[in-house]
Amino acid sequence: MTEQIFEKKHQINYYECDTNQQLTIPMLINIMIQVSGEQSHQLGVGDEELAKKGLAWIVLQYEMKIEQIPTAHQTIKVTTQALSYNKLFCYREFKVYDEAGNLCVTAQSTFALLDIEKRKMVRVQEEVVAPFQTPFLKKLIRTPKPEKITEETAVTSEYHVRYLDIDSNRHVNNSKYIDWALDTLDYDFLTSQKLTYLNIKFEKEVYYGNRIQSQMSLRETTEGKTITAHRIMTGDVVNSEASMEWQKIEEETSR
Amino acid sequence: MTEQIFEKKHQINYYECDTNQQLTIPMLINIMIQVSGEQSHQLGVGDEELAKKGLAWIVLQYEMKIEQIPTAHQTIKVTTQALSYNKLFCYREFKVYDEAGNLCVTAQSTFALLDIEKRKMVRVQEEVVAPFQTPFLKKLIRTPKPEKITEETAVTSEYHVRYLDIDSNRHVNNSKYIDWALDTLDYDFLTSQKLTYLNIKFEKEVYYGNRIQSQMSLRETTEGKTITAHRIMTGDVVNSEASMEWQKIEEETSR
Repeated sequence: MTEQIFEKKHQINYYECDTNQQLTIPMLINIMIQVSGEQSHQLGVGDEELAKKGLAWIVLQYEMKIEQIPTAHQTIKVTTQALSYNKLFCYREFKVYDEAGNLCVTAQSTFALLDIEKRKMVRVQEEVVAPFQTPFLKKLIRTPKPEKITEETAVTSEYHVRYLDIDSNRHVNNSKYIDWALDTLDYDFLTSQKLTYLNIKFEKEVYYGNRIQSQMSLRETTEGKTITAHRIMTGDVVNSEASMEWQKIEEETSR
Repeated sequence: MTEQIFEKKHQINYYECDTNQQLTIPMLINIMIQVSGEQSHQLGVGDEELAKKGLAWIVLQYEMKIEQIPTAHQTIKVTTQALSYNKLFCYREFKVYDEAGNLCVTAQSTFALLDIEKRKMVRVQEEVVAPFQTPFLKKLIRTPKPEKITEETAVTSEYHVRYLDIDSNRHVNNSKYIDWALDTLDYDFLTSQKLTYLNIKFEKEVYYGNRIQSQMSLRETTEGKTITAHRIMTGDVVNSEASMEWQKIEEETSR
């Protein structure tokens, strides 16, 4: 087996950044998926080829460790590698490096194949994954679950799905769930804390026309970290769960 | 005077596109501003240099003619040229070409300088525009106004400003106004009509924490076009007005 690490440089444009010129998490995810999509395309199993079979890749989970968020105008390097697969899931790693070569983000992800018409997950097809030369490992990998929200203290914001929230898979793009989750946190929090860890599971698709509730509860750890737990719901249905770890930005580094 | 046309290639990423894999209008604007920002930077009068003077560029108006919207994965060419300036305004043109060299979009824009602390427009400073070698023309250019909404038939959607709506100028990014405007139109409209013309004026800044109303009225012309008029309000304050012209997509080309 050859290690198929695919890499791509990406210049961070201002519109991929927040008010502090830091790359946003939704955009980070978008860029990662752009890069893995390009690897698949190069190997002859890109989105167009999949669409001909009535299939599309969906992401079920991201687990990210964030050392540092790259900033506007930098040219980052994104690497990605398919690790292994089993009957239902494919595992893929992403790494993001800044211009100086420092590791900024490591992300583990779980992909699955969606039958576009039936809106159901299907078995991983040998011909779709063969070009990645990754091993079939029968045993499922146990990925850590996001921390649950504390219902009693949770705050809720409501959103309706916009046309521009939907992607080519005709459902809300994964990155928008993170928009909704982050929007429960206010300006002071988001500008005084830095995200060090994110774990998000996507459970059920959200469609155009849906109204969603974005719920969040927050707790502080004894080590001085803040953990926010998030849940995206449509009525009684859980669409996504996530948890994030935050560290207060030191005065010296916040300027 | 030398013609200073700046150009840049841009690969359209999937996350800059809508469900039909067409570049979205908010992203088109983002990309244009990225390119003009890079021209300014190259000429030594980029955003960072302006920020040192306490200044930032803001856009007051875009008028766009759209022949064709570029699609995902294409590498487009964006050209931009500062045309002229007067006491308060700078005029700039953008053109977007697809991979085959066809002209897709022509945009006229009006820029002004914002005093970042006072949140007020200031006189155009000679040293900031000199590197563009454009003429000072005393007479203001009369730009066409967007068509007014018809209050009686207007529909309204309400939004709160999210953290990720704010840009490095500490106000809602121009592109987000178009998000709000387009969101008053439904899925069937947006997938059966193509935008051929957009005129948007930005009148007053919108800030974090604001609640905005996005209003829209629609009329059909005798030539079979649809014109939508838009207004973004915070309470009684008009933040932006826009109008858009749409043409029904022919069955042959809609697939």
